[in-house]
Amino acid sequence: MHSTGKVYVGVIGGRICNSDIGKTAFETGRLIAEQGWILVCGGMGGVMEKACQGSFTGGGITLGILPGNCRKHGNPFLSYSIVTGLAEARNSILVKSCNGLIAISGSHGTLSEIAFANLYNIPVVGIDTWEFSASENQDRRLTIAKAENPQAAIELLKSFF
Amino acid sequence: MHSTGKVYVGVIGGRICNSDIGKTAFETGRLIAEQGWILVCGGMGGVMEKACQGSFTGGGITLGILPGNCRKHGNPFLSYSIVTGLAEARNSILVKSCNGLIAISGSHGTLSEIAFANLYNIPVVGIDTWEFSASENQDRRLTIAKAENPQAAIELLKSFF
Amino acid sequence: MHSTGKVYVGVIGGRICNSDIGKTAFETGRLIAEQGWILVCGGMGGVMEKACQGSFTGGGITLGILPGNCRKHGNPFLSYSIVTGLAEARNSILVKSCNGLIAISGSHGTLSEIAFANLYNIPVVGIDTWEFSASENQDRRLTIAKAENPQAAIELLKSFF
Amino acid sequence: MHSTGKVYVGVIGGRICNSDIGKTAFETGRLIAEQGWILVCGGMGGVMEKACQGSFTGGGITLGILPGNCRKHGNPFLSYSIVTGLAEARNSILVKSCNGLIAISGSHGTLSEIAFANLYNIPVVGIDTWEFSASENQDRRLTIAKAENPQAAIELLKSFF
Repeated sequence: MHSTGKVYVGVIGGRICNSDIGKTAFETGRLIAEQGWILVCGGMGGVMEKACQGSFTGGGITLGILPGNCRKHGNPFLSYSIVTGLAEARNSILVKSCNGLIAISGSHGTLSEIAFANLYNIPVVGIDTWEFSASENQDRRLTIAKAENPQAAIELLKSFF
Repeated sequence: MHSTGKVYVGVIGGRICNSDIGKTAFETGRLIAEQGWILVCGGMGGVMEKACQGSFTGGGITLGILPGNCRKHGNPFLSYSIVTGLAEARNSILVKSCNGLIAISGSHGTLSEIAFANLYNIPVVGIDTWEFSASENQDRRLTIAKAENPQAAIELLKSFF
Repeated sequence: MHSTGKVYVGVIGGRICNSDIGKTAFETGRLIAEQGWILVCGGMGGVMEKACQGSFTGGGITLGILPGNCRKHGNPFLSYSIVTGLAEARNSILVKSCNGLIAISGSHGTLSEIAFANLYNIPVVGIDTWEFSASENQDRRLTIAKAENPQAAIELLKSFF
Repeated sequence: MHSTGKVYVGVIGGRICNSDIGKTAFETGRLIAEQGWILVCGGMGGVMEKACQGSFTGGGITLGILPGNCRKHGNPFLSYSIVTGLAEARNSILVKSCNGLIAISGSHGTLSEIAFANLYNIPVVGIDTWEFSASENQDRRLTIAKAENPQAAIELLKSFF
């Protein structure tokens, strides 16, 4: 019942996404709800909205950490939203509020969140998102567990909890 | 269902409170739940905890906007919590996330929230909290609707919505 | 030479002010420069701009902690500016960065800063600003040392250092 | 004279660094001072401290945007410091305050800043820091202009201004 006994999983990705990525986000949200996990996101459109819609369809709970000053700018599938007024500085809050993250595609905002997750030792699973080549500097490693699809992402994340 | 269709009411006050203030906070939380409103607070002890306990008893939903870096520091009656890591700068987020606030006793942190609420044009009802004398400068007015008890505070807040 | 060996004094007040308040702010800034203190402010117009102009005239250094996303919105008398993008949540940063504050008139934003200063145990001197009547609750006291003019404010602040 | 007429250049990198990286940071800071640019950094040790020392040696100005609550935790070569109390959420502020950034080595905190810089369209030059292989997804590109040494980094940055 208490908030500390729950599992909070962030879904991060772009505010705009194509249809395939949208389907992946939707399915990820649906599976998060199936696990009984709380879905945390930035509250806007694209990957965030599709994931929330998936969770909503599955009867799950979604939290939106909005960048702006108005709750109405959040997507229509948020159970609850927080109005930060901090713009992208809210990315740090989103990450700190999660036990794990699933990154789906995404661009520079998503990368900032993956970097914060690595900094705070919070596990990240990625589907079609940022990654480094094998030749990278071993001292400078972005740790993202790569998954081919939402089901695999959920299983991977469970292995970290 | 959507987060914008809901009413978010903040309860603000000290992290430590005496027994009388605690009872007032509990009853305020219980009545907020009875209204079907979401209770938002700073997530810590004292007035925040007692209000959350009241809401919990009444089957309500409570959100905690935590100042620190760890969810476990939140009080045991939070339905959901957000881990900001922003210390008192999170007071601005708490206020922006509410349709109205009820201040119960409280000290300087509470006053910063009342000031932000006045700045953002969000109504505040106060029970045994900060107030100014009638002789104050009319250009420098802290707008707090004064209530004698939780029931009166709820009614006053409803008159603003 | 090092930043910790310097004295940082914040000047807080409204973005718009009348001519008398503007003169007071200007003179306060001039005297802050005369002391060799660094003037910290929110970087915008009104009291902030006039105080910076006074410091500039006296050869002092001014720091602006801007609420928005663009340095160009700062007033023309800032030696250096920080672009926070945090809106009013930056008020907490401004206060934390000061050894003491002088509040000149001002409204709810200024009150939020005075409240934060009391919370962080940073001394505040006020000229024609928020104050409570003598009959206030002694447990709920806003500590502002009242000064009649800039020279008196500087002397009062020096007594706290 | 006005803060908008100045060039603010951030130096980002780890709080701990080896001797070679330290020399690179020092030389970068020295050259930034030589250009008359203001050096902005997170204010702590390692790359930040060495860059500030270089700027100090060259008679330059350095600004530290501190993550914690105490000015004394800043490095000894800061001309001026801002005390944010925001922990790593201050990374966004640091980036927004710069016209360009030079990344020197660094880890996940540095990557979050590079990501924010790409998000805000602020140019980044990197020396021995994060980079992607040529085979990366073209839609997901981290834009860092690679430089072999401090002198080359300065020249590259000038080409963006």
